[in-house]
Amino acid sequence: MTHDAQDSPVETTGPTGGTDTAPEMSWFAWGDPERATELDPGTRDLITQVLRTRTEDMPPVAEEDVVLPETRLDERLREAFAEVVGAEHVRADAPTRLRRSGGKSTPDLLARRSGHADLAPDAVLFPADHDQVERLLALCSAERVAVVPFGGGTSVVGGLSPIRGDFRVVVSLDLRRLDRLVSLDTTSLTAVLGAGVRTPHAEAMLAEHGLTLGHMPQSYEFATIGGYAATRSSGQTSSGYGRFEDMVVGLRVATPRGTLEAGGPPASAAGPDLRRLMVGSEGTLGVITEVAVRVRPRPERVLDEAWSFPDHTTGVAALRTLAQSDVRPTMARLSDETETFVNAALAGREATPGCQAVLGFEGNASDVEARAAAVREVMVAAGGTPLGPDPVAHWRENRFTAPYLRDTLLAAGILAETLETAATWSDLETLYRAVVDALTGALDDDVSGVVVLCHVSHTYPTGASLYFTVATGAGEDPSARWAGAKRAASDAIIANGGTITHHHAVGTDHRPWMTDELGPLGAEVLRAVKSALDPEGVLNPGKLIPDA
Amino acid sequence: MTHDAQDSPVETTGPTGGTDTAPEMSWFAWGDPERATELDPGTRDLITQVLRTRTEDMPPVAEEDVVLPETRLDERLREAFAEVVGAEHVRADAPTRLRRSGGKSTPDLLARRSGHADLAPDAVLFPADHDQVERLLALCSAERVAVVPFGGGTSVVGGLSPIRGDFRVVVSLDLRRLDRLVSLDTTSLTAVLGAGVRTPHAEAMLAEHGLTLGHMPQSYEFATIGGYAATRSSGQTSSGYGRFEDMVVGLRVATPRGTLEAGGPPASAAGPDLRRLMVGSEGTLGVITEVAVRVRPRPERVLDEAWSFPDHTTGVAALRTLAQSDVRPTMARLSDETETFVNAALAGREATPGCQAVLGFEGNASDVEARAAAVREVMVAAGGTPLGPDPVAHWRENRFTAPYLRDTLLAAGILAETLETAATWSDLETLYRAVVDALTGALDDDVSGVVVLCHVSHTYPTGASLYFTVATGAGEDPSARWAGAKRAASDAIIANGGTITHHHAVGTDHRPWMTDELGPLGAEVLRAVKSALDPEGVLNPGKLIPDA
Repeated sequence: MTHDAQDSPVETTGPTGGTDTAPEMSWFAWGDPERATELDPGTRDLITQVLRTRTEDMPPVAEEDVVLPETRLDERLREAFAEVVGAEHVRADAPTRLRRSGGKSTPDLLARRSGHADLAPDAVLFPADHDQVERLLALCSAERVAVVPFGGGTSVVGGLSPIRGDFRVVVSLDLRRLDRLVSLDTTSLTAVLGAGVRTPHAEAMLAEHGLTLGHMPQSYEFATIGGYAATRSSGQTSSGYGRFEDMVVGLRVATPRGTLEAGGPPASAAGPDLRRLMVGSEGTLGVITEVAVRVRPRPERVLDEAWSFPDHTTGVAALRTLAQSDVRPTMARLSDETETFVNAALAGREATPGCQAVLGFEGNASDVEARAAAVREVMVAAGGTPLGPDPVAHWRENRFTAPYLRDTLLAAGILAETLETAATWSDLETLYRAVVDALTGALDDDVSGVVVLCHVSHTYPTGASLYFTVATGAGEDPSARWAGAKRAASDAIIANGGTITHHHAVGTDHRPWMTDELGPLGAEVLRAVKSALDPEGVLNPGKLIPDA
Repeated sequence: MTHDAQDSPVETTGPTGGTDTAPEMSWFAWGDPERATELDPGTRDLITQVLRTRTEDMPPVAEEDVVLPETRLDERLREAFAEVVGAEHVRADAPTRLRRSGGKSTPDLLARRSGHADLAPDAVLFPADHDQVERLLALCSAERVAVVPFGGGTSVVGGLSPIRGDFRVVVSLDLRRLDRLVSLDTTSLTAVLGAGVRTPHAEAMLAEHGLTLGHMPQSYEFATIGGYAATRSSGQTSSGYGRFEDMVVGLRVATPRGTLEAGGPPASAAGPDLRRLMVGSEGTLGVITEVAVRVRPRPERVLDEAWSFPDHTTGVAALRTLAQSDVRPTMARLSDETETFVNAALAGREATPGCQAVLGFEGNASDVEARAAAVREVMVAAGGTPLGPDPVAHWRENRFTAPYLRDTLLAAGILAETLETAATWSDLETLYRAVVDALTGALDDDVSGVVVLCHVSHTYPTGASLYFTVATGAGEDPSARWAGAKRAASDAIIANGGTITHHHAVGTDHRPWMTDELGPLGAEVLRAVKSALDPEGVLNPGKLIPDA
């Protein structure tokens, strides 16, 4: 039985379900332009000294100086689109196109800051609902127009680049109008959310019913529900709430061949789980328009505790013991020695030696106390020293701000970028060393030194993720400089048992490693599914699925 | 990164890893022939009285009287197979073919008991390893020979029927020789098991290392690791250990197009999860040869408690509250009023009024105590009365024996069969009533009355499973009688928000409802994947995937 959200025996919140008041993101940087900061001279001096480099300011060009290719949207096509979504929802003005011309990776930003938006879409379409999306896809398939679905615009892997492929025209399909809490089932604790709902808006609508989704990735403030499903997102509280794919109860997907609905019942043995085929499909197989998610009562209590470990190996072993035990925190993160030192410096406190972990517990009061007590025993036995809640408070305050800092550094001529992977506990230490070595080998040169930070941010019974942050001088050609380092790190990941991405997704940037990741036959399976659902190949060309 | 078990930094148990001493199952009934029982006259009288029916013994024909179609395995083909697996592992004798001519559903058994084995495979092949399976599949694809993978032989949905389809020859591919613990990673707590390993053998090999898989379906004694993966199995302790698909870390799959390996790292955002596409594929997309599973320390402590509820609605609400709470039992089951009464009668004790639930807790001692105490509070608040551990002990003793009882009844002219589904908590009560009504409507007639029992056997935060047991007089044509009831129940399931199967899988029996379940486009996706991996369509024809 496919899940038809409209037919559920549920209460609904009415046609709009609240208003999303989040600001539009900057065209050349992460997030709210109002929250951008400048680097203070003291910090800048310190960084350039540590990196043994000279830096020069790299301010963005003025918006009006950005060169957009001329739109190829002709009048006939504009009218055809307008017939579906209304004339006011077909936009081809420069600011609208510029803001859909890519995502938020450093290479994306470097291009736009320097005035290049070669890949800007010819137009941006704003459908109102699933049916309009489906009609647009049929139209684009018939007219051979490439379609790039656009949610919160937060991709850091090139997932939003409007690659034209073999097509004359490419459009961005902005899903922001699909912003409703479609239905809520307070008995089964499921909610159907429009794909374009941003997380704070989702949480506000759910909070009216005492509920939460509990998905808190760094992109939380801007990313959308549909985007999370399309990219297999994972949030900071994944130990407690699970990855986003674990929260997905059902999906409604528009494709050029019609609608695919998957899921509904809590579990099934009726063949392969097609939800898991659409989750992570990054707009290449269809456009996710509605997501039925598991929701939970809002936690009564949040309890934090930081821990110190003498070294990385001991800290990783402690997190492993926890992840394999019956009691689990809601959040568990462990910084390596370098990141522990840098975090302390950024927070203006003295660094404890070794590695620092932050743990968080959410739930009802008695359960949180009980779990925290049980975890405390495990952590002490594993060699940890409790540091109290304060270091976690600082982390919580800044949990969504790292991308702003990245852009502040970039403006000052310092390249700061991240990459991530995951592996089994057995492979983790080797993988960690290999990636640090690859990044250091690629970036420690005459131009600049490099600082590589790493933390374990998601733990599982069988393994964990590794999240690396790299800072180095931008040099003459920062895009090429980063591309070389990224290639070296990705090769090291694949060679050492890691996945090419744990939660950033594939987009264009990880696509060259996808055949290694899936094997040639796995890649072929994805191509076969694509041919079935998108026979003309108009959906998000050049992303995720490797060529044969 | 695909998971190559051979390359893992692990300890291995050597080439064999122990010996599987389980007996071969009866050719006309479930399980070990030594454990078959007869119905005592008193019980028989009671049942016939309750069912208002006359019964006649339905003994099976003698094995030598079963009519097998002549084998179409010619000498050339036999030699080609023998070249891959060795001559002694290509078998076309009657006993071997008969025992691979179907599964263990009541219709399957009725056919064989009456001497019909029209679908017997032309030969049975016993490959030794993954490479032999892959070579056999390439050979069968080239020679257009249909292949039916065979694990423990426990399918109750027609998943093993050697349907010839458009092919001249059909072979059964018995995976029993893939019976090794291939590797064990005690750091990551993962084990790679051969697809043909039966569960007790798997548990024995893991127990040597203090580990357990924790998968306990009713078919536990005979079913195989590969079969669990192929059918999206779920065990009795799924609340604690998860469904089998949740335990699958990685898969190795042989297809006519080569090998597909999926999984390895604990989590990934590298496109859709292809493990979930192979899990539940029932031998139609490939033959699973190795499964990497999550394993855990063997529980220190097992604690049971039975509960009584005044009625089904109250009991279901209590299980829902538990499933949505932070504390969970390892096992939770709730019988409806009729099943509660019948279970008490079978156990020789007086039935408590209302509904009975059995809960089980496994883990380390302190955790079990803590969870049981927390659960006790929830259950009392939800209207439950504790009954102590004894009723659970009786259930544990008989947890794998229901199929023997089914066969005992069948031999006495009483049709006893099961079917199952799952739905959200919101849909559960309506679905329950609809299926009971459908079964009663189809079977309560001049031939016989009917008794319908039901229990909730698997709970999830968003819903639960329903497992129905039906007993009725066999009548003149028991196969047709059951087919009508099954059709009515399946229609009721699809019409009321249920999945056509929660853990029995699809096979032939649920295939007519698969387009309803997946939608036409979902069904087309499966056909596209099949075309990519099995272009000649030789893999398990007539199962799972609906025709276009």
